[in-house]
This record gives sequence, structure tokens and C-alpha cells, in this order.
Amino acid sequence: MVVGYNTYIDLLEDLIDEEQEVISTGMTKEVDRTQLAVEAAQDGKRVAMISSGDAGVYGMAGLVLEMVAENELDLSVEIIPGITAANAAASTLGAPLMHDYAVISLSDLLTPWEVIIDRLEKAAAGDFVIALYNPKSKQRTEQIKEARNIFLKHKAPDTPVGIVRSAKRGTEEMMITDLENMLNHEINMVTTVIIGNSETFTFADLMITPRGYEL
Amino acid sequence: MVVGYNTYIDLLEDLIDEEQEVISTGMTKEVDRTQLAVEAAQDGKRVAMISSGDAGVYGMAGLVLEMVAENELDLSVEIIPGITAANAAASTLGAPLMHDYAVISLSDLLTPWEVIIDRLEKAAAGDFVIALYNPKSKQRTEQIKEARNIFLKHKAPDTPVGIVRSAKRGTEEMMITDLENMLNHEINMVTTVIIGNSETFTFADLMITPRGYEL
Repeated sequence: MVVGYNTYIDLLEDLIDEEQEVISTGMTKEVDRTQLAVEAAQDGKRVAMISSGDAGVYGMAGLVLEMVAENELDLSVEIIPGITAANAAASTLGAPLMHDYAVISLSDLLTPWEVIIDRLEKAAAGDFVIALYNPKSKQRTEQIKEARNIFLKHKAPDTPVGIVRSAKRGTEEMMITDLENMLNHEINMVTTVIIGNSETFTFADLMITPRGYEL
Repeated sequence: MVVGYNTYIDLLEDLIDEEQEVISTGMTKEVDRTQLAVEAAQDGKRVAMISSGDAGVYGMAGLVLEMVAENELDLSVEIIPGITAANAAASTLGAPLMHDYAVISLSDLLTPWEVIIDRLEKAAAGDFVIALYNPKSKQRTEQIKEARNIFLKHKAPDTPVGIVRSAKRGTEEMMITDLENMLNHEINMVTTVIIGNSETFTFADLMITPRGYEL
């Protein structure tokens, strides 16, 4: 049985057999979806729960294991790692994640905004390269502006910023800009934003963070 | 032509044709290796430069692009993303990276130790999940102790810690412990260490960071 969010099931079309049972549900139905998958597995079915990117990064791996732990179930679960959006987007931009980096989601649906703000502050003050997930949606439009203001307290306005939409999904689009100008470009729910550290530079259409080697 | 560090070329044995030119060099020869690869590409060869994990995370992608930028070369380079150790190790441990996380290398060969210390402080103070790369080598044995001391200023002694050696290399070993006891376990150059945030918990042999859903 294959269980997943509609959009991800569509992406898998070519890999799913006609005989396979498929359950696809809408967005924000994560808990229901997990319950269905766990119950089917308890009934003896072999169930694949689908995430995009890496299931272990803001994906379904955690929810499945939380449900197993909460109910003290004796279920065998294997987590198969994937390439998360930060690394997929980085490869499109060049090599921005070559030094210490922080991955932060701007979605405050499940996390208090104060916690997110504090992490943005700490990551910027520590001169981390920063990858932002869920930077903006139709409902959430202010978070990316606040995040940029926090970054500007610690990082120069010409710090390189990479914007990648639909990383590695076949319809990928990318743009390299800087902190000063980043809000002039389209940022939406399928966008990953990568902000450089103090040594990140650009060349042609590449964003590069040096590792520190003498060339 | 295939260029890489000896150990990684050995891992690829089954994928390399007999007719393919292979250049493998020792550790710390990264700059020489990159020079060889870039020169061969300038001579018109199609060159694959090999990294383990994700070439874009402390890997060879950055050095190749730095050399291209430094010499303003008109070379076409494609970065192919991979699964970096943090995500590979996380999948073995359960789902520790389900919330905001920081990736930090403890190697001070190319980065001043004060910069690393500052990042450890900021990441711990921001309650990030933290993945440590290059935690210890035969020469560098003190960094992991100092890192632990910094974490203990901000995190509880029973904060879960996952230790994974040779993640996904066929000889993988894993262990879940806590900040208090982490130094009692073998940590070496092929080890990735993941320290939980304030909500990370363990169940059976799993390390889980909740995303925040109501179950």
C-alpha cells in the first residue's frame, strides 16, 4: 500500500503498479494519513508512506515514529533517507552549503513565531549559511520580510541569496540575488531560499561558499 | 575520467569500467586532485569528481567551483546532490532532524576554532538539533569534549544524542545515548553525532524530534 499527499502520489505515477493500493489525501491531513498507514501496517500490510525530499526533514518520518512511540507499537519501520530541499537547491545554485549551515522553517503553523525568530537571530549572529523552508504562502506573507530584517542586523546587504523554486522537480527555476534585493523576486511555498555566510561569493550564475582551502 | 579520494574510488569499484581513466589520491590532497580534474576538463575530457555523501556539504563541489571562479574559466560544471551524513545518520536513528537543525564541522584544520565555538554556542542557545561532522580524529581529540561542555550550558544532560559510524556504508553502527554519557562511546572520523533539541525523545532504539502535531 502506498500512502501520501496527492501531489507526491502524482509525481510517483510511473513507479506505482496498477494492482497497488494507493491512498492519497490533501494537505494538512498529515495526522489522518499517518493513522491510515499505521493501521494498515498493524493489519499486516506492507506500507510505503511517501514524503518529498527527505522524509526525515519536516517530513512524514517523524509523525509515523511519534505514533509508534505514543502507542508503544511493535511495528518495524524503515526510514529511507532522501535529498532534502536545502541540498537539492544548493546543487542548483553551485556550492553555497560548503560550510556550517542552519536549516529553518518559517512556517509558524506548528512552531511559535518567537522560537523561529530566536533561531533566525542565533543562526545569523553565528554566521551560518541559512536555508529557509516554507518561506511564504498565500496566508503567510510577513515572515520572510521579518527574517530578512533579522539577517540585515548581522549580515551585509550584498550577502548573496539563492532562490530556487521546485528544486529538481523538472520545472525548477533559480535566481541569485542578495539580501538587499531578495524580496523583489517570487518566493512561494515550493521555494527554498539560501542566504550565504560572510564569505559566500558569486561568479557567473554560481553561489559559492569557500571551505577555506588555499588555492 | 573519474577523480577521487582513494577510499571513495574503492567504494565505486563496481561502477567503474575497465576502460575508464581513474585518478585516486590520498587524503588532504584535495587541491591537487581538483587541479588535475579541472585541467583534464579544460583539455576536453568529461570528468567526474567524486565525494562521499553530498559533494556540496564539506565536499569537493566548492573547491571545483572556487577554482573555476578564481581562474574565470568557461567550464560547464554540474553538481549532483547526494545524501549528506546528517540525513543518512538521521534515518538510521529514527527522525531526529524533524525540526530546525544546524550542521557544524568540528575540524579546525581550515576554520579557526573560535568561529566553531561561537557557532556551537549559538546553535545550542537557539535550541537547534545539531549534527556534528568530523567530531574527532587521532590528532583532534579535545574538540568533541569542548563541544559537549558548550551544549551542557544550554541543554539538559539527558538530551538524547545519536552516534552513527559509517552511516549507510554497509558497516554501519549506531548508538543512542545522551549528553551526559556520550563520551563513553567510540567517536571517530567516520562518525556523525546528532544532538537533540529540548523536545527530542527516545523510544526503543529510536531518536525522535516532534514536529509539533497534535496526535
